[in-house]
Amino acid sequence: MNIAAAMDRAVEASYAAMGVSSPNPPVGAVILAADGTLAGVGATQPPGGPHAEVMALRAAGDAARGGTAIVTLEPCNHTGRTGPCSQALIEAGIAEVHYAVSDPNPVAAGGADALRAAGIRVTGGVGTDVVENGPLRPWLTRQRLGRPMVTAKMAAGVDGRIAAPDGTSQWITGPAARDHAHGQRSRLDAIVIGTGTALADNPTLTARTSDGGLYPHQPSRVVLGRRDLPADANLRDDTGGPLVRVESHEPADVLAALPDALWVLVEGGPHILGAFFDADLVDEVHAYVAPMVLGAGRSSVEIPGVTTLSDARRFETSGVATLGDDVLITLTRRLSTSGQG
Amino acid sequence: MNIAAAMDRAVEASYAAMGVSSPNPPVGAVILAADGTLAGVGATQPPGGPHAEVMALRAAGDAARGGTAIVTLEPCNHTGRTGPCSQALIEAGIAEVHYAVSDPNPVAAGGADALRAAGIRVTGGVGTDVVENGPLRPWLTRQRLGRPMVTAKMAAGVDGRIAAPDGTSQWITGPAARDHAHGQRSRLDAIVIGTGTALADNPTLTARTSDGGLYPHQPSRVVLGRRDLPADANLRDDTGGPLVRVESHEPADVLAALPDALWVLVEGGPHILGAFFDADLVDEVHAYVAPMVLGAGRSSVEIPGVTTLSDARRFETSGVATLGDDVLITLTRRLSTSGQG
Ligand SMILES: NC(=O)c1ccc[n+]([C@@H]2O[C@H](COP(=O)([O-])OP(=O)(O)OC[C@H]3O[C@@H](n4cnc5c(N)ncnc54)[C@H](OP(=O)(O)O)[C@@H]3O)[C@@H](O)[C@H]2O)c1
Ligand SMILES: NC(=O)c1ccc[n+]([C@@H]2O[C@H](COP(=O)([O-])OP(=O)(O)OC[C@H]3O[C@@H](n4cnc5c(N)ncnc54)[C@H](OP(=O)(O)O)[C@@H]3O)[C@@H](O)[C@H]2O)c1
Repeated sequence: MNIAAAMDRAVEASYAAMGVSSPNPPVGAVILAADGTLAGVGATQPPGGPHAEVMALRAAGDAARGGTAIVTLEPCNHTGRTGPCSQALIEAGIAEVHYAVSDPNPVAAGGADALRAAGIRVTGGVGTDVVENGPLRPWLTRQRLGRPMVTAKMAAGVDGRIAAPDGTSQWITGPAARDHAHGQRSRLDAIVIGTGTALADNPTLTARTSDGGLYPHQPSRVVLGRRDLPADANLRDDTGGPLVRVESHEPADVLAALPDALWVLVEGGPHILGAFFDADLVDEVHAYVAPMVLGAGRSSVEIPGVTTLSDARRFETSGVATLGDDVLITLTRRLSTSGQG
Repeated sequence: MNIAAAMDRAVEASYAAMGVSSPNPPVGAVILAADGTLAGVGATQPPGGPHAEVMALRAAGDAARGGTAIVTLEPCNHTGRTGPCSQALIEAGIAEVHYAVSDPNPVAAGGADALRAAGIRVTGGVGTDVVENGPLRPWLTRQRLGRPMVTAKMAAGVDGRIAAPDGTSQWITGPAARDHAHGQRSRLDAIVIGTGTALADNPTLTARTSDGGLYPHQPSRVVLGRRDLPADANLRDDTGGPLVRVESHEPADVLAALPDALWVLVEGGPHILGAFFDADLVDEVHAYVAPMVLGAGRSSVEIPGVTTLSDARRFETSGVATLGDDVLITLTRRLSTSGQG
């Protein structure tokens, strides 16, 4: 297996750690034996458990000696709840290390130097783009901004309507789009809705597989707003993640209530989405567009105080995918306008 | 050149005849010489002028003898303002004919039989899908329904807003999307707007190239609604197509005022689009989605009387394209729901 293919495998493994590893980065690692065959794959375990390198080394056993480690993040060099990964790689007799992203965290960084000092050949920059904009993006956002990455999600017709005038909104998108959204929930730390949506739709906000089963990881369920939820609200059942009530109107209070979260999805309704846009707290938009025109009813986003076109929030289109008969458009923050209100 | 490549060339040629040939079908034809080399390309000329086959035969000259004709529509067999194309192909000594779509028009049909009777090998069904859903779709719609094909166009942010609360809407989409829309205008018979848009935006509705020049073909400019347009409205200038005033609130009156039109684009605003959806007169939707959230202002479509989700107009997603930073989603009528209100 070559290094690029091994990195793809490591990236794939790291996706399974998203949501599970928080607040630690979801990392993937692959060990190739000295003859280049795949010897082990690993991903970051829940906090307190082993990091990806250690999991991959364990899977590889003796085959790691003289082999190559491929890791999505520079191996850490500090002793936290687990020993430094650089030390584990050295002790296992690894000859060569390739990683995608350098560790920006001054406490953990220095892994590459420690490995080199031990005589290991170390190369950074393999697959950097894919990892930076993929599984490690939420964690890198937290390192840089001290808050989780925020994705605003909407599911609407081409006219942007998310519900008919009588409030009906099931179903606008089809099964493929819903499966995709549930797969995403299984990698999130938290889903945020407003009291309006909680009271109108009584959602469960669990992450479910297409056959109706529960994913192993369930995100926290956050409700923003002052009104009470009824005692029998579906959000209070014990199949999903913890219910977090934020009884204010401040998006920043939501992020403060989630100190360990790396990735938060704001699902709506329109006023909650608007408040996050207004606070300039949206890093990414997932717009699921269904092949229909409602022609009346609520629009997906209501931002207070918008009067003219220059008040619009502009992003960059970073992805377009078809999901059954629906289209998922992904927008990301423009770096050049990140200071715009 | 093989037959499939020749058909691609014929389709390309036929696009240039769209809008120009109306009410006749925009057809493209290619003549291959007996040795398979490209000898001539032609497309339908304006009414009264030669059809595609005759243009291609003229271009080929003597090289047509013993050669092959590739045509997007079954050659016509009747003598209208021009002689039958089947006769022209026979006289030129063509040995073989391939066409994409059979002529559904009983007056003109029979071309294939006439050619066969003259000893020519005739094959239908080459490239049928591409032609039926492409350059000949508007004409086939008119043959079937007795009215032009209607495309509803909207240009909006991901929240479906087409203008800010103060009415500003320039520019939501970027230059690539605007160039694409102008290219489409150059192939249309008519563009329809409401008096609201005409008075608010004072548009020209001309088809312009990216350097600001005018396309040779300009569509008719139709304004629906009762209010008067000012004497100095840009729509009255003489650089664009004819101004057609339809002083009613009935979308059907627009189509009746355009008896020769094959393809009509409804550009807005929201009430005019809503009236066409309400009358079940929309065959296709072109939704240009810009990477922005307005968060307030008008939505792209207002349909009167919509109360619940089952009132939504459902289509099929038939295309997704990126145009610079914008996304164009194309929806087409679902055959199974064409009777729905
Ligand atoms: N298709 C979709 O993607 C989708 C997704 C979600 C929702 N929906 C639809 O959206 C509708 C609900 O919309 P909604 O606007 O009523 O619900 P919402 O945005 O979920 O909740 C609005 C409520 O949140 C509270 N709130 C907290 N912070 C706020 C702030 N900064 N600004 C304003 N309000 C704030 C207020 O209630 P308090 O008085 O309690 O503080 C407010 O009434 C439902 O019909 C639902 O089906 C559709
Ligand atoms: N971004 C885009 O794609 C786009 C495209 C077009 C327009 N726009 C924006 O849309 C806004 C204009 O919206 P609008 O709704 O006022 O304009 P509109 O839909 O163009 O025109 C509405 C007017 O058309 C007449 N009308 C004709 N048939 C009607 C029917 N069946 N139902 C209702 N009205 C009918 C009525 O006026 P009478 O009293 O004269 O009969 C009505 O006031 C502008 O801000 C413009 O910038 C944006």
